[in-house]
Amino acid sequence: MHTKRSWAYSTFAAAILTGSLMGSTVSHAESGTEDQKVKNVIMVIPDGMGNSITGLTRWYQNGKPLEVDSYVNGLVRTYASNSITTDSGAAATAYATGHKAVTESLSILPREVTMPGVAATKESEMDKPVSTILEAARLAGKSTGLVFTCTLDDATPDAFVSHAISRNESENITKQMAYSGVDVLFGGGSALMKPEGKDGGARTDGVDLTKALQAQGYEYVTNKAGMDQSKAKKIWGLFQPWNLDADFDRNPKEQPSLAEMTTKSLSILSSNPNGFFLMVEASDIDTFGHENDPAGMISETLAYDKAMKVAIDFAKKDGHTAVISMADHNTGGLYLTNYDSAQQFNAVMQKAKLTNHAIQDKINKNGSNIKQVLEQYYGLTGLTTQEIAEIKRAWKQEDGDFSGVIGRKLGERAGISFANEDHTSEDVVLYAYHPHNFRPTDYAKSGVLQNTDINHYVQYIMEFNLEDLNKNMYASGHDIRALGATVKFDNSNQAFPVAVVEKGGKQIRLAVDKNFAVVNGQKKMLKVTTLLIGDRLWTDRSVLELLK
Amino acid sequence: MHTKRSWAYSTFAAAILTGSLMGSTVSHAESGTEDQKVKNVIMVIPDGMGNSITGLTRWYQNGKPLEVDSYVNGLVRTYASNSITTDSGAAATAYATGHKAVTESLSILPREVTMPGVAATKESEMDKPVSTILEAARLAGKSTGLVFTCTLDDATPDAFVSHAISRNESENITKQMAYSGVDVLFGGGSALMKPEGKDGGARTDGVDLTKALQAQGYEYVTNKAGMDQSKAKKIWGLFQPWNLDADFDRNPKEQPSLAEMTTKSLSILSSNPNGFFLMVEASDIDTFGHENDPAGMISETLAYDKAMKVAIDFAKKDGHTAVISMADHNTGGLYLTNYDSAQQFNAVMQKAKLTNHAIQDKINKNGSNIKQVLEQYYGLTGLTTQEIAEIKRAWKQEDGDFSGVIGRKLGERAGISFANEDHTSEDVVLYAYHPHNFRPTDYAKSGVLQNTDINHYVQYIMEFNLEDLNKNMYASGHDIRALGATVKFDNSNQAFPVAVVEKGGKQIRLAVDKNFAVVNGQKKMLKVTTLLIGDRLWTDRSVLELLK
Repeated sequence: MHTKRSWAYSTFAAAILTGSLMGSTVSHAESGTEDQKVKNVIMVIPDGMGNSITGLTRWYQNGKPLEVDSYVNGLVRTYASNSITTDSGAAATAYATGHKAVTESLSILPREVTMPGVAATKESEMDKPVSTILEAARLAGKSTGLVFTCTLDDATPDAFVSHAISRNESENITKQMAYSGVDVLFGGGSALMKPEGKDGGARTDGVDLTKALQAQGYEYVTNKAGMDQSKAKKIWGLFQPWNLDADFDRNPKEQPSLAEMTTKSLSILSSNPNGFFLMVEASDIDTFGHENDPAGMISETLAYDKAMKVAIDFAKKDGHTAVISMADHNTGGLYLTNYDSAQQFNAVMQKAKLTNHAIQDKINKNGSNIKQVLEQYYGLTGLTTQEIAEIKRAWKQEDGDFSGVIGRKLGERAGISFANEDHTSEDVVLYAYHPHNFRPTDYAKSGVLQNTDINHYVQYIMEFNLEDLNKNMYASGHDIRALGATVKFDNSNQAFPVAVVEKGGKQIRLAVDKNFAVVNGQKKMLKVTTLLIGDRLWTDRSVLELLK
Repeated sequence: MHTKRSWAYSTFAAAILTGSLMGSTVSHAESGTEDQKVKNVIMVIPDGMGNSITGLTRWYQNGKPLEVDSYVNGLVRTYASNSITTDSGAAATAYATGHKAVTESLSILPREVTMPGVAATKESEMDKPVSTILEAARLAGKSTGLVFTCTLDDATPDAFVSHAISRNESENITKQMAYSGVDVLFGGGSALMKPEGKDGGARTDGVDLTKALQAQGYEYVTNKAGMDQSKAKKIWGLFQPWNLDADFDRNPKEQPSLAEMTTKSLSILSSNPNGFFLMVEASDIDTFGHENDPAGMISETLAYDKAMKVAIDFAKKDGHTAVISMADHNTGGLYLTNYDSAQQFNAVMQKAKLTNHAIQDKINKNGSNIKQVLEQYYGLTGLTTQEIAEIKRAWKQEDGDFSGVIGRKLGERAGISFANEDHTSEDVVLYAYHPHNFRPTDYAKSGVLQNTDINHYVQYIMEFNLEDLNKNMYASGHDIRALGATVKFDNSNQAFPVAVVEKGGKQIRLAVDKNFAVVNGQKKMLKVTTLLIGDRLWTDRSVLELLK
């Protein structure tokens, strides 16, 4: 199976290496010098990790610096094409494609541009899918990977391998992911792999994505032992139905840590002599920020820091790898105002051994043990009768803010205040390692970069040219019709509608979200999946050649 | 008068340049290479300016980068010797002396050390005054300056030229300042120069510090024209009784801007061929942070940014000047969560033309025009009857939170939330310019520095050695008695008690807070002021030589 896939790789890799697909990238004026170029890039995104959260986390370890501290390189501006405050979709699109995007969208050109310094999109290109650095790496013959702790359909990983107007198009996006050609994918969200009612599946479209993976030669695992034992070069591991458990909460025998998933990914990806691109997301710093749970925020920031150590240790040993890391935005409006010593602070905080998620599982049916559970596992001592009543109310309500109520009480005791439960818009901190110390601020000649500059830097050091790639990647239905072909839709398989293209006796069937065409009955791999974005069809531009 | 002072300079400068006072600094292993050394350092401290505040301020100018953005160089950890969260006293002490300090103290060794990585102080050295980079610069024959917008007795400027257990010892501190030998001092606080009841003075100790300045050859001015027209090499300018007005509020003909005070200081200080050290503080970002007034925070951050432009433009032209800038801590817990465009944001924020301070002066005696004033000058439109009643209550009360009530209402309309009205503990952003690009993170080999590292960096590039200086700077009363001398106090002038040292017919009179001795009736300049810290006397170590 690996051999079959390698064919697809080598075809496109050859095209790219000779410059026919991506323009003459090697001699491109925007490429790095020998000292600036690298073979591999690891991008690590701590979702929602504002500057105050790293500070808080240091005090949890008695002030000891984080592994990442040494690598601070500057700041990143995060705004979207249409908003001062961004979401993970628009932010990950900027990192993945180099384009500011509309909030909630994934790796398409922005329809709404109202913010400074962002070029307006031509009418004909609004919502057009644009290439990601992961896609460019794959097309250049490199291996690619995605590691995260959220569910499969969450915005940050999705923006690297899928294209959609809304991050909420969960079922379409996950189909695109399954046909994206990404070599390694580890995270949560196994419920999105199977139809409703089958093995805990939750898909309403009846699709079994594990079969799609199987057909393409992937191994699919659902626990840590499966991941550890796998010898596959192409593997998906989804270790929980939805998000993985927080690092504080997880069963380490069942669910791997972010660091462990990163280690395994690197061992697989690094066997490709052409190099690799790996995106690692510490997804749930954001989750616990929204929930105002300081224990959860610390849990996930420490997990991030350990994964960063894995990435940087690999890069230092390898000598051809750059590591770049920055949040997409801050979440939860946390500030620490504590006039105590680190020890006094930790007399409160280190008693929190679980996040609010695991706490809920410890509470019995009628909630009679809430006080004990919060004391024993969350460090919330000295609760008054009134406070317990308040907590119980929040716990009982379907949409009760249980996490926020207990999180803010823990916070009060530790000197933490939360301004809100939302994203905030200030600059995030940029961390970077480059084997020859050519870091993003050297590239940008500024200490504050745009989130899109991060992508441009990666292009530069990896010798990609996404703009050239974009010109050669997608054809629209309009382009196909302009060659005199007809385009009709066969909706007999509702999960995968098929665009039927016909011209002069030739028929090309393009299943939406799949990465191959059927040309007069013959299967032909495409370099990208066929997409239906809004009411517009996009497919591999090579389809135009077949029609000429 | 300048000539007289130059004598004192040259004496000590010679001692330092030959290495007798500061150790062999020139050949010291810790000194920079030729490319790393500079003649001049400008340190700019935006008090209370957290990362979210610069972000907010950019949106006020439609997203345009700040002048300082390009110069981001890393992050700074701000904790005190005894507390996770710092105050301006302990923070400025770290920048000035290279020692973590107890909160509220000014440039003395810490008595209470409870935080990680801070060396405990020997019993005999607790509260001992330690040299500042400004003092080292003066002793090295360089010119020195302090520029600020707060009052004369505020902690940040004070830590560079005075030594005290508490920043609240206002009258002692300001006396030390007057005898500190600083060449240029511009800011607020003229009420602290004169006795109560005289020309708006507020001193209870009956001292007229303008006379002390006059005796030492300083010019003293109190308005912008006086500053502009002065040709003096030694000048104090205090342009308001207490804090200067906010940049949004000030009368530009009466009160200079921070940038203008910086420009004037540089024109004076740069005439010294030995170079200079200048500390500039944008003091009132902190003030408006405590008051939760976003208009004030923006006003003062813009004023800071303009002063930074002056400093960096000077440094670039000069070629021998480094500029280093970082807040001491963040204040006010501000976060901006705004999903609008920059234009929509500014439709709210740019209507705020004055801060809450100037607003109060626009309100008539009975408060009947509050609604109109807040609409016209603060951009607070659409206030309900209930809101106006709430604002009026806060305005009427002696300690009412008028600023916070209106600031938070303005904030709500612009998507701003405040977590508190206090300092917060997260890292502050470090900005730096060095003519040969040897910046603090290059010195520290880390992207996150301790606030004390900032001081060590300045020592390194200016070839100072404060630890050696500390060994030779102060003698204690204990040291004096150990030589067989007696020490008694003459309290006949309560404002300046005199330590009377006697041994074998020799009498040395040392007035506390003054910078000279009277040796058998003869005046002799000292290199430091005599200090009474707690119940312990500290004076120039050269006094010991006079007793041998």
